[in-house]
Formats: sequence, structure tokens, C-alpha cells
Amino acid sequence: MADTREQDPVFELHVGGKMAIVSTVALEGRDDLSMAYTPGVARVCEAIAAEPALADDYTWVSNTVAVVTDGTAVLGLGDIGPSAAMPVMEGKAVLFKQFAGVDAVPICLDTKDTDEIVETVARLAPSFGGINLEDISAPRCFEIEERLKALLDIPVFHDDQHGTAVVALAALENALRLTGRAHATTRVVVSGAGAAGVAVAKILLEAGITDLAVTDRRGVLHSSRGDLTPVKKALAEQTADKTGRTGTLADVMAGADVYIGVSGGTVPEEVVATMADDAIIFGLANPNPEVHPEVAHRHARVVATGRSDYPNQINNVLAFPGIFRGAFDVRATAITEGMKLAAAEALAALVGDELSEDFVVPSPFDARVAPAVSAAVAAAARAEGVARR
Amino acid sequence: MADTREQDPVFELHVGGKMAIVSTVALEGRDDLSMAYTPGVARVCEAIAAEPALADDYTWVSNTVAVVTDGTAVLGLGDIGPSAAMPVMEGKAVLFKQFAGVDAVPICLDTKDTDEIVETVARLAPSFGGINLEDISAPRCFEIEERLKALLDIPVFHDDQHGTAVVALAALENALRLTGRAHATTRVVVSGAGAAGVAVAKILLEAGITDLAVTDRRGVLHSSRGDLTPVKKALAEQTADKTGRTGTLADVMAGADVYIGVSGGTVPEEVVATMADDAIIFGLANPNPEVHPEVAHRHARVVATGRSDYPNQINNVLAFPGIFRGAFDVRATAITEGMKLAAAEALAALVGDELSEDFVVPSPFDARVAPAVSAAVAAAARAEGVARR
Repeated sequence: MADTREQDPVFELHVGGKMAIVSTVALEGRDDLSMAYTPGVARVCEAIAAEPALADDYTWVSNTVAVVTDGTAVLGLGDIGPSAAMPVMEGKAVLFKQFAGVDAVPICLDTKDTDEIVETVARLAPSFGGINLEDISAPRCFEIEERLKALLDIPVFHDDQHGTAVVALAALENALRLTGRAHATTRVVVSGAGAAGVAVAKILLEAGITDLAVTDRRGVLHSSRGDLTPVKKALAEQTADKTGRTGTLADVMAGADVYIGVSGGTVPEEVVATMADDAIIFGLANPNPEVHPEVAHRHARVVATGRSDYPNQINNVLAFPGIFRGAFDVRATAITEGMKLAAAEALAALVGDELSEDFVVPSPFDARVAPAVSAAVAAAARAEGVARR
Repeated sequence: MADTREQDPVFELHVGGKMAIVSTVALEGRDDLSMAYTPGVARVCEAIAAEPALADDYTWVSNTVAVVTDGTAVLGLGDIGPSAAMPVMEGKAVLFKQFAGVDAVPICLDTKDTDEIVETVARLAPSFGGINLEDISAPRCFEIEERLKALLDIPVFHDDQHGTAVVALAALENALRLTGRAHATTRVVVSGAGAAGVAVAKILLEAGITDLAVTDRRGVLHSSRGDLTPVKKALAEQTADKTGRTGTLADVMAGADVYIGVSGGTVPEEVVATMADDAIIFGLANPNPEVHPEVAHRHARVVATGRSDYPNQINNVLAFPGIFRGAFDVRATAITEGMKLAAAEALAALVGDELSEDFVVPSPFDARVAPAVSAAVAAAARAEGVARR
């Protein structure tokens, strides 16, 4: 193992971690010290104590997000614990900075208990301008996010849910445009009812998709099933209960226009082959999409994955930096559904006239992405009344 | 107030806060992204999951300290709350980086409950290589530090206690040398039995001072008093109970060789005048020393304060950066009493032959300070068996 690491450029890059703190003020002598620290700093503390909103102006808090995990659902690795999750959280933090100038601090918690996670993050809240929940397993992630949103007046955002949902919606909007489909008559299957699947399904409903079936390992989420969690039950009522679709994944794939996989596993090619003409297939599991792109291309017109080595990468980094940037720019007290929809629209719009089968979503390295997303999110925050400036 | 702030260079310096996160790795394109983030990062996560100690090598954790406060005892301002405490915590963080290359993250907690603070910090521990407790009021600070030390296998250090104690001891050692005093026959008065007073008293005892009286607002800590907290009672047993000294501050000042004030307030000049010849006076309250330097100089040979505009500044920044640097350099699992004594000795030794009434402690901007302190602390950690490498 040690020899493998020594020869591996990934490990070499990770030596000492991927991030650091820097001072943004000079500290060259006594005068500097007496302004940045005692006695001068006391005046700033007193001003904030008298007028708490001044913390936005005179501390780093309003530009800083905590990237919080319990290490239970890290990438495709599962429950590897808080220490082993740190490299992903550091990666997220450097992406926040690189793409949107947001300072992010990785917080890996030594508890998996829902109540303890909620109370811990709530106690940390004065230190941060926002909370990005990350790699927390379902269904706890739903309750944790909802409770923190209710408790706190700063943005709380579970990226595994909403980052994926925003980018998937952006790509889908363009794929629908390309294939000439209307939202109301498009049949969509979302495979997977974990964090990403639930959020993708919800944002599709908000965007106007009406014929939607969500599946888990036991088939379509439908209220006739007796084994649904409260979150799945609520989703069933909004989706397959309305259309009457039941059965297995294969049952609902027959004739479907769109397949969005956020489940892992593999969809057999004979099932893929039953989809409608000009089908749209997003296989988002990493590194192995639910439908391999080569297979997908034999049966679909638009194919997207989570991978960087194929066209149409559905990558959360297209969303989360700009979403927090926009929220922070207007001191938003929350990230609303409207702000997420605005982010997806802005992302989709960047593709513009270049729209093609291999270009339904911009590249993560398109420098227009974060500014466009943040501007749309900030405008939506103002429109929805959650902006503080 | 707004106008005052606009004309104040301290507020100008604080706009946007004093610190930021930076990436230490390149993120220029897909290849970089695939190493620092998915899919490459998964290999690092898996390695740490299999061998947890690898987190020291491949994350920023082993160089990162949480600067944790509840905002209850901020500078001389008292209980101003977690948000208003942030400018001090950011200042501390930038000093950690500037003086010792330690990455520090300010954590301001929205709770004053001892149990909640302990459990919250314990849950955060996988994210940090050490915990610097800051500006937490006595007596809770004692229990919080002791419980966290027992729970965690990383350094836990309450700087208001031990940083002050280390620097005060260093200055006192040199002052004793200058005035030709022996530890065993020197009479010391410590005024104040809060965080700093208790820690100063303890380190003086460890350093060999035997005739020590500690006072609070009601006079000398002595077991005959019925109003002592457990911490004060334990201290009384180690100090005035042994010498039989009781009464008021004025009572024990008569004939005392050393006065160390960490209480605030003012000692009347007629009381100062009763001290022994060649007296040593450290008035450490900021910005107003317990004995003004002009008054002190009329009655004492060595005078130190916490202020930067007089000689002999007892400034914690002489201690905490090097102490954590040394502890981190050897992956120490704790900061022991021996490591603190070693830090004080190293600091005192830097004065060397230049020792004079106006130079008993080095300048915070002496570039030798942090390296000397960290080397001594690292060596002591090895000697005491708490070094992991």
C-alpha cells in the first residue's frame, strides 16, 4: 500500500492536505498587531455586540460556508467515517474558492445521530454564513436539512440533493428543447430514491414535469406499497400515485422519454431498448453510470453522465459555488426552491445556440458559469424576499 | 456610530474580515479536478478509512487548530456573545498563521452550557489537529478544558490560562535572575483567580515558587473561607494554606517580592509602596494595568504589562503559536505541564545576556521566538511520551 501511494500522483498531490488559511491583513509590527488584535479589535467587537448585523461587514463569516458531513455517504464509498471523508470535504472547499470566491471550512462530525448533528450545526452557526451539508446518508439527510432550515436564518443546502438536482434539471431542459418535447407530456423515470433521487424528482415536479415515476430497489414508489419511508410516501403521492404507474423499473421504462439514474447498479440493455424514440438517458452514478454511454447511445439521442471523460457531465460544481455566491452576495437568509430553479435556468441558458446532443450542459471550466448562476440566484432571492440587501 | 467607523482605520482594516481560505493545489482543468476531487480523491479516502493515521499525512487536519469560544469573556469586554467575539478569534487565527504557520479556524459557539460546549467540540474533533479554547469565562473554562483533555487525543489548550501563564513565568524567571532572587524564598502575590490567575499560580508552583498567595475580590484564597469554588479551594490548599497567609490583598502585599495582576481594577499606590525592595510588578490587565507603569516604577525594579507601548509586554502571542507548532510537529496527543514549562524556559532563555530591567521577555516580533518555543515544546513532548512521531 505504501509503495502504491508513493507512486500515485493523487497521493502526492494530497500531502499536507489541499487547503490553508491566509491572513488578508498585514501583520508586520506592533501597529498592525494593535489594529488586527488587541487593543484595536475591541472596538469592532463592541460595535458588533451593539449591532449584530455588522458581523456581516467586519468578519469573514458572511463569505464563509461550513461543509458539514458525518462521513456516512461519501462518494460511492458509503459510510467511511468523518476522518476518511475529509479529503472530499477539502476538495469541496477548494472548489468553492476556485469557482466562486467562497471561503469554505470542512467540518467532519464524530456523530451519526440526527439530533446530535442538528444541534451541533446549530451551535456552530454564528461562525458561518451558510451550511453546505455533504455526503450524509438518506433518509437522515432529509430531516437534518429540514430541521436546520427551520432553526437557522442562514442558507442551508444539502448539495448531494440540490446540487445534483439543479444541474440535472438544467441538462434536462436543454435535452427537452433539443428533442422538441413539452414538459407536460414527457414521461420521466428517476431511478433511485436516496438524497439525489428525491431532490431530482422534486425539482422536476417544480419545473412542470407531471408524468414522473421514481423507483427504488423494490420498484416504483407508489402508495400501495407498505414499505415506504415518510419521504418516499410523500414523493409517491406527488408522482406515480397520480399517473397510476406501478411495478418494476422495467415496467415504467417501457415507453419512457427520460431516464435519470441516481441509484448505481446497471439497467439491462434490453430494458433501455424499450424507451421511446429520441430518448434521453442520464446515468449519474460515478464512476459507473447506470447505463454505460456506449449502450445508451445505441438507444437514446441525448446521453449524460457524471463523468468528465464523456460529453454532458452532470457535475455539482456547476451549481454549488454559484448558488452560495449568489446567496451570500445578497445576504440571503435561505436558499429557496425558486433560487434553485433560477440556478438551473441560468445554467441551461448558457448553452444557448450551441445546443446539440453532446452539449446540453456547460463545462465546469466555463468561466461564465458561476457569475451567471450567482446573478440568477441573487435576483431570485430578492424576488422571493429572502435577501437582506 | 457609522461616521465614527468610516473614519477609523481599525474598522477599515476589518472590512470583509481578516482571513481567507486558499487552495494549495492547482485546479486548472479536468485533470486537476479528477485528482483533487472525484474520482481520484476516493483513493485517498479509502486509504484513510483503512489506516486512520494517514489523515495526518493527506489532509490539512494535522496542521489545523480550532479556536473555540462561547464569547463569554472576550478581552476585557466580558460576555458579548459568539458573533461579537469573531473579530478576536479571526485575529488569533491570523496570528497562528503569521507566527507559526498553523492553520486556525475560528469557531464561535451559540451555547454557554458546559456540557453542550464539551460535546460539541468533541464532535468536531475529527476536523482538527488541536483545540485552542479562547475567552470562555471562569469557572466553566476549567471544567471544559479538563473534560476535553480527557475525551480527546489531540492537544487541548485554553490560551487565556496557559498562554498567559507561560509568558508570565518566562518574564518572572528573568526578573528573579536580574534581582538575584531564589524561587524558594521569593514571596509572590497573584491578584485574580479567574482563568489566567489560576493558571499563573499553578505554573509558578510547578516552577518552584513556594510562598504564593492568590487573591480574588474577597481577599486571599484560604481554606478558612467558606465561599471558594472547587478550583479556588484546591488552589488555596496549594498556596496560602501552606504559608498561613490570610486577609486582604493589602495584607499580603506588605513585604511581597512579586505582584502579578490578572484581575483588573487598581492597586492603590500606598499598597504598592509596602512591597519589598527591588520589587517585581506585572500588571497584566488590558488596556489598564492594575498598577500603572509610572506608579509601579516608583516602587519596583522590574515592571511588565500586557501593553505594547511599554517595555516588557506579557503577550500570549509569544507562546501559543510556538506551542501548537511544536505539538503539531511531533503529532503530540496533548499539551502537558512539562511542555508548558519548556515553552517558558525557551522564551526566557532568548533574553540571554541582554537581560535588563526593561528586557525580561522577548518582543513578539523577534523571529527567534516561535522556532525556539516550538523546538522546546516538541522535545518536551517526546520526553514526556506524548509525541506520535
